[in-house]
Amino acid sequence: MAKFKNSVGLTEKKKFTFEEPLCLESGEEIGPVTIAYETFGKLNTDKSNAILICHALTGDSHVAGYYSSDDLKPGWWETMVGPGKGIDTNKYFVICSNILSGCMGSTGPSSTNPKNGKPYGLDFPVVTIQDIVKAQKKLIEHLQIEKLLCVIGGSLGGMQVLKWASFLPHMVGSAVILASTLRHSALAIAFNEVARQSIVNDPNWNNGHYYDGQKPSIGLSIARMIGHITYLSDESMRQKFGRRLQGKTDLSFDLDVDFQVESYLHYQGAKFVDRFDANSLLYITKAADYFDLTSPNEIESLDILKESGTKFLIVSYTSDWLYPTYQSRSIVKVLKKNGLDVSFCEIEADCGHDAFLLPSEKLTNMITGFLRARPKVKKDAI
Amino acid sequence: MAKFKNSVGLTEKKKFTFEEPLCLESGEEIGPVTIAYETFGKLNTDKSNAILICHALTGDSHVAGYYSSDDLKPGWWETMVGPGKGIDTNKYFVICSNILSGCMGSTGPSSTNPKNGKPYGLDFPVVTIQDIVKAQKKLIEHLQIEKLLCVIGGSLGGMQVLKWASFLPHMVGSAVILASTLRHSALAIAFNEVARQSIVNDPNWNNGHYYDGQKPSIGLSIARMIGHITYLSDESMRQKFGRRLQGKTDLSFDLDVDFQVESYLHYQGAKFVDRFDANSLLYITKAADYFDLTSPNEIESLDILKESGTKFLIVSYTSDWLYPTYQSRSIVKVLKKNGLDVSFCEIEADCGHDAFLLPSEKLTNMITGFLRARPKVKKDAI
Repeated sequence: MAKFKNSVGLTEKKKFTFEEPLCLESGEEIGPVTIAYETFGKLNTDKSNAILICHALTGDSHVAGYYSSDDLKPGWWETMVGPGKGIDTNKYFVICSNILSGCMGSTGPSSTNPKNGKPYGLDFPVVTIQDIVKAQKKLIEHLQIEKLLCVIGGSLGGMQVLKWASFLPHMVGSAVILASTLRHSALAIAFNEVARQSIVNDPNWNNGHYYDGQKPSIGLSIARMIGHITYLSDESMRQKFGRRLQGKTDLSFDLDVDFQVESYLHYQGAKFVDRFDANSLLYITKAADYFDLTSPNEIESLDILKESGTKFLIVSYTSDWLYPTYQSRSIVKVLKKNGLDVSFCEIEADCGHDAFLLPSEKLTNMITGFLRARPKVKKDAI
Repeated sequence: MAKFKNSVGLTEKKKFTFEEPLCLESGEEIGPVTIAYETFGKLNTDKSNAILICHALTGDSHVAGYYSSDDLKPGWWETMVGPGKGIDTNKYFVICSNILSGCMGSTGPSSTNPKNGKPYGLDFPVVTIQDIVKAQKKLIEHLQIEKLLCVIGGSLGGMQVLKWASFLPHMVGSAVILASTLRHSALAIAFNEVARQSIVNDPNWNNGHYYDGQKPSIGLSIARMIGHITYLSDESMRQKFGRRLQGKTDLSFDLDVDFQVESYLHYQGAKFVDRFDANSLLYITKAADYFDLTSPNEIESLDILKESGTKFLIVSYTSDWLYPTYQSRSIVKVLKKNGLDVSFCEIEADCGHDAFLLPSEKLTNMITGFLRARPKVKKDAI
């Protein structure tokens, strides 16, 4: 099929379940845990060409390709992952899994709690980026890969990459971190808290027990609207919407939607509630807020990272105000201070935080070059 | 009393009602209209020392002073308005009125609809910045002032100043516009729409009829939390809160508040619902969104403004991302293109949009100088 040209084509969501409980940073345990994942390309015989892609806040394992020939929409990073693309599936074995606490096949608050046969809801434990990475590690071990050639991710995915590199440095050959941060800022926490408040104050939320009734769709939709604003930029919103009216030639002089930007946000909110679980958003935003690689507990990890030889590519975007360039520069600074090999690039882009997901020849070339320059993982180096 | 030193001291909210209906931009009419206002200082005999201050989104007429000797909190611009201050009440007669559609004494959606003796609710017509200014004009005429020495305002207040200058140019000797814009941007509209959605989806909102029951406090509180984020800056939030925890030494590992920034937003939200009407916020944000002095309808106003001789001071703040400096520069450009006398200053400030309300020696000196340099309004110049 024409759309499968330059694509990984048909893909399939797979599931891996491990029975032994996962010990979490909170001290709690969870198990069994299922991780939904997809793979693209072929693992070579010495298992040295595996790349793990970590998805952002509301992403999933479906990074590229189509689930069926009727499927209209490819995976979320189709422009980057595929044969001959930036992350070339002819060369690399690409893995992407849905994060722990997600709602796209991995264990999360909407999954069945084995203790009572009902959805976990708020009985799901609060997880951290480290817990998410620990669950991913189980998958990588299940795939019998001892060391990843590269771990790549943007935004919340970038936090996972940073955690992989600092928590499991000897499993990470190289790391690409896009539009991310060493620690979640007060501004980012603030937006997340408003999003959470919007959800938990929806009467249908019902303290997290809504799985057999009406969903807190309005709260979740407003949360998504807030999120969407932070993914764009003043400039991109000006270009994309300006003050253009939605389906009318004059102001309505009522309290309904007048402007295209309002209509766009409503559309994004409504679309989101069809695909995402409100409780998952609560848990994942909390994991983001808890992320701080500069906290005193993390110093030791950075010490271990020093000896790993992991190589880094850090990328930021000029108009990203959610994780601005200075935050990427902080990553660079910390890594360099630890004597690590770090490349850094700030890409000129008007489109805000979302830039890392949009097609970019510059980013594609940079990732291609970075992956090519990395020596293949040698067994004796593990 | 000590606190009255360097203050206008005790002040009183006054009310002016005009019976004849006000014709609105929508084509609708409203009347009678009451305008709550306060005055400070003395009007001189030739009525040439009157300064009108226009308040921002959720402000009121109480720009300076105290309502009683027990009153702990002075007016919202106490640092700028008073004897010997930037806007010197020993020299000038200062007027500040609550805007039409507000909830601090002027006619708004919470006022009684004379048609049925009940609060207007959504029967209140949508008003524009021009309508707000038209109502203020009635007050100025009532005070028998033919020409204002200066009209001053920040943010939504700045929009009113721009409208005064372009709509009633011969009544405006000079104009000070702080942290404002010629037209509401898509970004600013987006935040307002999310705030409105938060209110109208609170079940207590009840299509605007909540005055005899539970108020939509949660929706209004979340709307205020969103607003507050936009008034601060990444830098000021980092300085003010960083990642400091609220009343605990460790992360809670639950979905409750962990960080000071979350607690601050909750506090601001809760405080706001005690003093503000949710419907007023809907109407005032809509008035802001409708504001566009660059729309084709406004060209004529700018032509008239050319002949007025009104002098302008435009001020922006480096960290204001709600109405960034480039938007103030657009005001300067339009005014200069029309041959007007414009001074412009971008003030270095970390504290975001809120900067215009905070004590600033630089702004104080600038306003003092600007007012001093203006020749007094001469009768024959009117």
